[in-house]
Amino acid sequence: MAFEISDILLEDLKNHIKDGNDTTLLALFEDMHHADVAEILDEVNWDEAVYLLRLLDSETTSEALMELDEDVRERLLDSLTPKEIAEEIEEMDTDDAVDAIAELDEEIQEAVIEQIEDEEHKADIREMLQYDEDSAGGLMAKELIRVKETWTVAGCVREMRRQAEEVTRVHSIYVVTKEDVLIGRLSLKDLLTSDTKTKISEIYIPKVDSVHVNDEGEDVANLMQKYDLEAIPVVDDEHKLLGRITIDDIVDFIRDEAKEDYQLAAGIIQEVEADDSIIELTRARLPWLFLGLLGGVGAAAIMGGFEKVLEEHYILLLFTPLIAAMAGNVGVQSSAIIVQGLANDDVKGSIANRLLKEMLLAMLNGLALSIVLFFFVWGWKDAIDYALSISISLFVVIIVAGIIGTFIPLFLDKRGIDPAIATGPFITTSNDIFGILIYLWIAKLILGI
Amino acid sequence: MAFEISDILLEDLKNHIKDGNDTTLLALFEDMHHADVAEILDEVNWDEAVYLLRLLDSETTSEALMELDEDVRERLLDSLTPKEIAEEIEEMDTDDAVDAIAELDEEIQEAVIEQIEDEEHKADIREMLQYDEDSAGGLMAKELIRVKETWTVAGCVREMRRQAEEVTRVHSIYVVTKEDVLIGRLSLKDLLTSDTKTKISEIYIPKVDSVHVNDEGEDVANLMQKYDLEAIPVVDDEHKLLGRITIDDIVDFIRDEAKEDYQLAAGIIQEVEADDSIIELTRARLPWLFLGLLGGVGAAAIMGGFEKVLEEHYILLLFTPLIAAMAGNVGVQSSAIIVQGLANDDVKGSIANRLLKEMLLAMLNGLALSIVLFFFVWGWKDAIDYALSISISLFVVIIVAGIIGTFIPLFLDKRGIDPAIATGPFITTSNDIFGILIYLWIAKLILGI
Repeated sequence: MAFEISDILLEDLKNHIKDGNDTTLLALFEDMHHADVAEILDEVNWDEAVYLLRLLDSETTSEALMELDEDVRERLLDSLTPKEIAEEIEEMDTDDAVDAIAELDEEIQEAVIEQIEDEEHKADIREMLQYDEDSAGGLMAKELIRVKETWTVAGCVREMRRQAEEVTRVHSIYVVTKEDVLIGRLSLKDLLTSDTKTKISEIYIPKVDSVHVNDEGEDVANLMQKYDLEAIPVVDDEHKLLGRITIDDIVDFIRDEAKEDYQLAAGIIQEVEADDSIIELTRARLPWLFLGLLGGVGAAAIMGGFEKVLEEHYILLLFTPLIAAMAGNVGVQSSAIIVQGLANDDVKGSIANRLLKEMLLAMLNGLALSIVLFFFVWGWKDAIDYALSISISLFVVIIVAGIIGTFIPLFLDKRGIDPAIATGPFITTSNDIFGILIYLWIAKLILGI
Repeated sequence: MAFEISDILLEDLKNHIKDGNDTTLLALFEDMHHADVAEILDEVNWDEAVYLLRLLDSETTSEALMELDEDVRERLLDSLTPKEIAEEIEEMDTDDAVDAIAELDEEIQEAVIEQIEDEEHKADIREMLQYDEDSAGGLMAKELIRVKETWTVAGCVREMRRQAEEVTRVHSIYVVTKEDVLIGRLSLKDLLTSDTKTKISEIYIPKVDSVHVNDEGEDVANLMQKYDLEAIPVVDDEHKLLGRITIDDIVDFIRDEAKEDYQLAAGIIQEVEADDSIIELTRARLPWLFLGLLGGVGAAAIMGGFEKVLEEHYILLLFTPLIAAMAGNVGVQSSAIIVQGLANDDVKGSIANRLLKEMLLAMLNGLALSIVLFFFVWGWKDAIDYALSISISLFVVIIVAGIIGTFIPLFLDKRGIDPAIATGPFITTSNDIFGILIYLWIAKLILGI
């Protein structure tokens, strides 16, 4: 069903580019979907991509550019002149245009904006550059259908046709006052069935959801998902209509957020793709690994402090990796559930209740696991005192690990810090250390050393 | 902006339910959004929820039911008679109706379907129950606007008004032949601007994307996201139009998938919420913890095998938790990047290339970390041979861990198994064991024991 770029097509394209067969190339790209153009730009080499960008009309390439990864788009645009970049920007919806410009070097941003011919587009872009990228203002586009309450149906249809040329898809028709204050929306069905002389004020629906320009992207995503909205208008302090956010931008936003959380949980601190360079991947991965190293060194130091106990009770040492691993696993599970609950807004009740529940849960899990471990150690080493102290330690460690894993994300969230950073290596490492400390301390107590 | 359920409102509601003030209750719920009704159903107790379900009209409650968690909805519906359930189902779009019925006990499913009065709805539901839940057929709804190519614009508008009553939102107008074969779509703009006597066959757009009823949900999600589609028609083998999938269902699908992957990475094997019962949470968490325990026991057994070495070279034991933790961390990072790359379809090149890249990356990271560890051990214990053997082991362990973390998900994917299960505890545990084994073996080699 989907378009697949075959190696043959790609080879063909490359040859045509080499030979400069512009007419053939233009024919090949005619009617191609911009997402497919993007895939081709991604597959060919650099010079070929720039060649295609210059050859194809901006209407095709501007949308394709927005499908590319940020860094690829940035590098491609860097190969163009400000004038050429402005031509691409000219064809983009305001939200895309602003994203593309924001990625450029600051020195050339102004030069590019200067070259934009459409004065309204230029003003919109300047306005939107002020909003935070992850706020409603940063997600919205200015293109929408707006009708004034004082218009008639006939005037409205006329205006809609004019506006619709700039708007790719009509999601909703928003009704505003003379002062541009959002007061409602218009159903297409009502518009189709009303007499042409009817005033809009008589047929519009006064109930319309909206978000404030400074609302956070994540809240907008949750709201649109909760109410199954496909578009939502964005207003300012005076409830004036500024733009609208559509669900396709929210889909991208949700995917990006999910990816970020997933990578944080796996100990990757900045967004990377499998195809990024080794340097980029190292920059994203090394910091958490250093933290892990520090944790390991800390654990070694702690064990060093128990040297005398351990020399005599050598068997305890064999189980330190087990204790550390279990502490890490339990902590990661607990934190993951809380982090997701917080993101979806369904963690209810007080922190104390939450911790109590986690404690009961950890006791249940800990009991099952400790019993198994007890019989294993007893069977293996035939020493009931070791078996007892190791399995009781595991039980306590699991409870503490569960509580730490629950508490840290809740605490960070209360402090206004993204709880997602608490998952993964952070929890694992701190639980490793706590786990080993508790383990050796309890063992010492039970063995009476 | 969003509706918030205050404790006062909730208290009020509960009192009205106790006193049986049905008129007041009906007034309170009038015009309330179904997502908010759902939130209330979730907050009140069981009997109160059932009371509200019986009191409010099915139009309100049916949509609210679909917003609830699966298990809550299932339990609520179980409190109703087949006749009452059928009334709710009657008001649902086919995709929701099918989801709701599929959750019921098999014995009452047929009884409920029998009670549905609308014969077309009944037939649609029976048809859709056959499709796999995660396939295009399972995601689609039957409600859509379809027009025949032989109709005129006037006839089309008339038909659309009739059909639109059943369809909540008009996404696209699909054009079919007499035999119901999908041949294109109609733009609203063209419909508005064409003469009423024009034939649809003259103005429709013959280019329309579609998916096959058996296509996988994930592929549909990727396709819709790639091409920014808000709805896509679903066809059968003969390209007959069966239904359409809308972006809001895809948003739910994407969130659920992301959640599942995230939880798998954290060692949670079935989807749970923070508010689920302790038993449910234990069932989701204990299996991976048992695996971790097994890994720890395995590590202890391996270390037991090196008993003589370790007794003499006691210091080596202090670093086993560090080695195990680093092996786990690197493995999780590598696998997370591959799993995400596979999900987004941007892992290109052969497995061999991928492994080579990961090896280079691991060598770079490993070198940096090993140097730090070398100086730490040297400074702490003033024993260059220990420092050397521990840090060289770390270097090798990191490389092997990276390769395992990359290889396992690629291998599972090639075998048609979801690579997401390879992340988290699975990789951590196997890397723990491999790590310790390699560590002790290399140390033995270098120290010449």
